[in-house]
Amino acid sequence: MGPNPPSLEELTQRLIAFRDARNWRQFHSLKDLIVSLNLEAGELLELTQWKSERDFEREAEGADMRARLAEECADVLVYLLLIAQRTGIDLPTAAAEKIAANEAKYPADKAYGSAAKYTEL
Amino acid sequence: MGPNPPSLEELTQRLIAFRDARNWRQFHSLKDLIVSLNLEAGELLELTQWKSERDFEREAEGADMRARLAEECADVLVYLLLIAQRTGIDLPTAAAEKIAANEAKYPADKAYGSAAKYTEL
Amino acid sequence: MGPNPPSLEELTQRLIAFRDARNWRQFHSLKDLIVSLNLEAGELLELTQWKSERDFEREAEGADMRARLAEECADVLVYLLLIAQRTGIDLPTAAAEKIAANEAKYPADKAYGSAAKYTEL
Amino acid sequence: MGPNPPSLEELTQRLIAFRDARNWRQFHSLKDLIVSLNLEAGELLELTQWKSERDFEREAEGADMRARLAEECADVLVYLLLIAQRTGIDLPTAAAEKIAANEAKYPADKAYGSAAKYTEL
Repeated sequence: MGPNPPSLEELTQRLIAFRDARNWRQFHSLKDLIVSLNLEAGELLELTQWKSERDFEREAEGADMRARLAEECADVLVYLLLIAQRTGIDLPTAAAEKIAANEAKYPADKAYGSAAKYTEL
Repeated sequence: MGPNPPSLEELTQRLIAFRDARNWRQFHSLKDLIVSLNLEAGELLELTQWKSERDFEREAEGADMRARLAEECADVLVYLLLIAQRTGIDLPTAAAEKIAANEAKYPADKAYGSAAKYTEL
Repeated sequence: MGPNPPSLEELTQRLIAFRDARNWRQFHSLKDLIVSLNLEAGELLELTQWKSERDFEREAEGADMRARLAEECADVLVYLLLIAQRTGIDLPTAAAEKIAANEAKYPADKAYGSAAKYTEL
Repeated sequence: MGPNPPSLEELTQRLIAFRDARNWRQFHSLKDLIVSLNLEAGELLELTQWKSERDFEREAEGADMRARLAEECADVLVYLLLIAQRTGIDLPTAAAEKIAANEAKYPADKAYGSAAKYTEL
């Protein structure tokens, strides 16, 4: 890597090259990519197990926990990129559209300071 | 949005502005962001429920399922960005490092065509 | 139902009769039963979203949240029973064996008051 | 264990004794019990990763995979029992009520051979 972080396109290309060099396309059904994303999300969740919100937040300021969080977040992103590549989804555009939809669903004045679901506002 | 997809930094800024306009920072403990990422991953998984790999793959070629996949992938990305922002993780760099680590853990010749875990290679 | 809660065997028989009356055996691959158990576990987790441990604990004392918890726990048990039936697992015996294994893995004197994994004790 | 599998009540009592002998009640917030149930459900799901429904079904007939499935199912049951004990839920009764509700939601004639959600029937 150079000094700049890679783009999502570059990461996706590296992932596909990695997969194909190992002949792993055969295992990567879309369903299994989604199962795998869930497993990686679970590994992220495992880092919080038996810890209060406050204790975990404090631990996450340390280098050790931050490194573990970075690794698990990376794994989630990896599967997200593989799913997006398979299905032809542009992730940043999809996220921007979702944010716009949430801005409409949760008007700032009604949702201010409330954790209620939009259906309950 | 203009014709170009937003960068991850732009998306993060929009998310923080969205959160703060609603005074939602108080709910966003790191643990709950991770719980929420898991819930969104689960909604992605729910799209595959009761469908064989093949049937789901075919369904994902249709516009309707692709739109639902895009929405759930967007939700996962949203929480991933919020977690990264909170913990100071650079996601693309973390992913690049993880890919490099996997290249070392799964040498192409040993892992070729095998779904075994690296500890079993 | 009579005054006594049904046994796990009775529940399993009702579930199989329910499934077969709807010709749903075809959808119930073992993998999808496990996916479904994960989705139900996620619905249980969703009840805790954006709530501190303490607030959630207090809410769970109310009749409304207890009813929702009961429903989601029931859904998890339903899939657990279907998985056990399919694979020929006796759940209570498996749990008793697991408890015995944990008693050996986590000796009371070493594990007293510690949340560490057994590999770290 | 004697020749009979233990009842859910006996299992619950053993779990509480196990927990209290280690002074672990302090870690067992209801939210963390639910997080832990999700993590165990994820370990069950991990057994299916990269395997087609058919291959996994075949593997589950072998003694090795059945033992692993039994262990992960046991872990899920353990947390389900701890959650039920904490919240005062009678699991078999809750499951029986859920089955009855599903019998009403999915009439056998309408739901026959269909994987559609009850809202779509």
